[in-house]
Amino acid sequence: MLKFKLLDEKCQAEQMLGGYIKAHENIFKSVVGGETCYSDALGWLHTERWAGPAQLDRLEALADTIRNNADVFVVIGVGGSNNAARSVIEALKTADGPEIMYAGNTLSPHALCQMMARLKGRSVYIDCIAKNFETLEPGASFRILRKYLCDTYGAKEAAKRIIATGTKGSLLESLCTGHGYTFLEFPEDVGGRYTAITAVGLLPVAVAGIDIRALVKGAQAMEKSLFETPAAENIAFKYACLRSIYYDKGYALEMLASFEPQLRWFYKWWVQLFAETEGKDGRGLFPVCGEYSEELHAVGQFVQDGTPLMFETFLDVLDPGASLVIENDGIQDAFDYLDGMDFAQINRTAFEATVRAHKAKLPCLILEVQRLDAFHFGQLFYFFMLSCYLSARLLGVNPFDQPGVEAYKRWMFDGLGK
Amino acid sequence: MLKFKLLDEKCQAEQMLGGYIKAHENIFKSVVGGETCYSDALGWLHTERWAGPAQLDRLEALADTIRNNADVFVVIGVGGSNNAARSVIEALKTADGPEIMYAGNTLSPHALCQMMARLKGRSVYIDCIAKNFETLEPGASFRILRKYLCDTYGAKEAAKRIIATGTKGSLLESLCTGHGYTFLEFPEDVGGRYTAITAVGLLPVAVAGIDIRALVKGAQAMEKSLFETPAAENIAFKYACLRSIYYDKGYALEMLASFEPQLRWFYKWWVQLFAETEGKDGRGLFPVCGEYSEELHAVGQFVQDGTPLMFETFLDVLDPGASLVIENDGIQDAFDYLDGMDFAQINRTAFEATVRAHKAKLPCLILEVQRLDAFHFGQLFYFFMLSCYLSARLLGVNPFDQPGVEAYKRWMFDGLGK
Repeated sequence: MLKFKLLDEKCQAEQMLGGYIKAHENIFKSVVGGETCYSDALGWLHTERWAGPAQLDRLEALADTIRNNADVFVVIGVGGSNNAARSVIEALKTADGPEIMYAGNTLSPHALCQMMARLKGRSVYIDCIAKNFETLEPGASFRILRKYLCDTYGAKEAAKRIIATGTKGSLLESLCTGHGYTFLEFPEDVGGRYTAITAVGLLPVAVAGIDIRALVKGAQAMEKSLFETPAAENIAFKYACLRSIYYDKGYALEMLASFEPQLRWFYKWWVQLFAETEGKDGRGLFPVCGEYSEELHAVGQFVQDGTPLMFETFLDVLDPGASLVIENDGIQDAFDYLDGMDFAQINRTAFEATVRAHKAKLPCLILEVQRLDAFHFGQLFYFFMLSCYLSARLLGVNPFDQPGVEAYKRWMFDGLGK
Repeated sequence: MLKFKLLDEKCQAEQMLGGYIKAHENIFKSVVGGETCYSDALGWLHTERWAGPAQLDRLEALADTIRNNADVFVVIGVGGSNNAARSVIEALKTADGPEIMYAGNTLSPHALCQMMARLKGRSVYIDCIAKNFETLEPGASFRILRKYLCDTYGAKEAAKRIIATGTKGSLLESLCTGHGYTFLEFPEDVGGRYTAITAVGLLPVAVAGIDIRALVKGAQAMEKSLFETPAAENIAFKYACLRSIYYDKGYALEMLASFEPQLRWFYKWWVQLFAETEGKDGRGLFPVCGEYSEELHAVGQFVQDGTPLMFETFLDVLDPGASLVIENDGIQDAFDYLDGMDFAQINRTAFEATVRAHKAKLPCLILEVQRLDAFHFGQLFYFFMLSCYLSARLLGVNPFDQPGVEAYKRWMFDGLGK
């Protein structure tokens, strides 16, 4: 299970934490007790609901068919509807199986033409993920790709290659019924950014050849642990309370950092989750990420010495899952002190040194993850989703709407004559 | 040339701008007049100095040799020493020529093992970019790759495949002399983050088959224009002054946004440039990026409705360089209003709608770029480097040091027994 550490020489929030937890325990109890105020958006809270054995059987069978027939699998989705899958796939996918490509997340003709060019001559399957089937990017990309498949394979064969993930009773479901596409259910009671452990997030991961049962098991283990652990020891609630304490103290940013480049796309999922959940009513901590050690040579300067805007949450991956020793090659240079060392050790030393330097300037939280595999991605997804829900409740905002995303859409639909 | 627009219904900084420019004109005059206080770090200011005809001839000849012989070219650099090249390469590289890979920017054994695995059986050339040749990441990666080349090709052939870019008189130069590697000069008077228009940034770009003469021409055109235009109309100084005004007004973040995914790696260069230049002495605007339209479904919510922390600078690419029309495929769905539209038009409509929605909530700056090609990347590099220098001078910090990067290094070198 994840472990949680706080190193806060700066604000000494540790001393406040007990009292804060006690004062807000009612929110924790309400959330794990099954509060009814957001019940139409809490389908993700019990992972069994949308990732039970029958659902996994169907997803795995579908994934097998795709893996046996496709050179390319295009995930058409935007925001929460592709970030979770992508974060696991980019971290764990091996070279075998179809290439996973992403569409539905841009309107740039340049980007889309590049993507289309890479399909030529290859066997293509697509999954259009669109909860309300009104969002422009996936809708427009689906049109282009659907037509490409029909032109390339004929309507009948194309239909076999089209999966669509939408809500029951939606226009997207009717299209599937009418044209013979495979329909997967986008849970009505789960918003895009909470879909990691549903068909939305799981099908692409399964197509990539990653063990979705292990992923779901990780999420379920985390769910069980977080539901059974009282507020005062509950790492999700402690994390949410610390975020709230730092926000109240005037911190503007939370930086999520790690020393594993494998987490690059996970950051994007995390940023989307927190920014869209909390950034409303003129409130919220702005989420940013640090790809260390690379970005120690970039934002690292700012973190250490710039405007004191942030606290930092490190994802500490204990077992890097790889080993590479620096051997002496007989050439003396300025790095002879590294002879015989493993990069695992060097990277850990850099991590520890960074924490030591940063904790003198800003609060540092550490989340220890045993290793980066499907099981632990499941844990991370569930941990952050529950934490984010709790954090938004502490902040006093609705965790499940996104009114600010609608603002530009009105002007855009106007401009497009919708 | 780039064009500059300000849409600020929120703070009405436009009205203050004239007075602010007048009050700080001495800084502009000092910078373009050749101030001496930072003269040991201003080698980039006149692009001719490190990217003159003879230097370009040599870089192009070397790049041709590599292109004729390599399947893979590995750029070993970190921070400013690879970001500029990478931002152009990831945006403009076509499929032909060697694959460009990046090392020296991580200590993760997992990431490095993955990179090494992709070299097997392919013809490899490397460029180790290290100004002082003390930074751990490039130093350690160079060891691994140098040994791989020697083991694979033998010392003599390996030497032909090794380029090293360091300062004159450095240990890296001695290694080149001693072992027959090709040596390129890392300008002593240019810091890593200002190296876009020197051998550091230009060799990888040339190896990728991108026209470095056009890149340099763009930078030179921008240099000429910015040196000849008086402070009141000078877009670099106006931009720097606006950043300073917003910082003084209490804004914490600048968000750089565009609707072209091609700019993804350019953001990284920009963030590194500004974070390391300005984030010191407890000061500075924290630089963040928005990959729109995708991230309108993520940070977009926060930008519109969250804590009012930021102003926003849009890079508006006028000509997307591609066209993709949505044709009716006979299937009615919720997107019939898009029939016959070009994504170029849709993406522009989304951009205009976003500016319209955001400008009501936060100051919006727009930088118009004609198109994304080598010439305009050159313009962007020079524009932002000069702006950043001016901005740091207005902020009252040293634009060319990075004392905060040293803090963790001390603990790290301790831990590694250096």
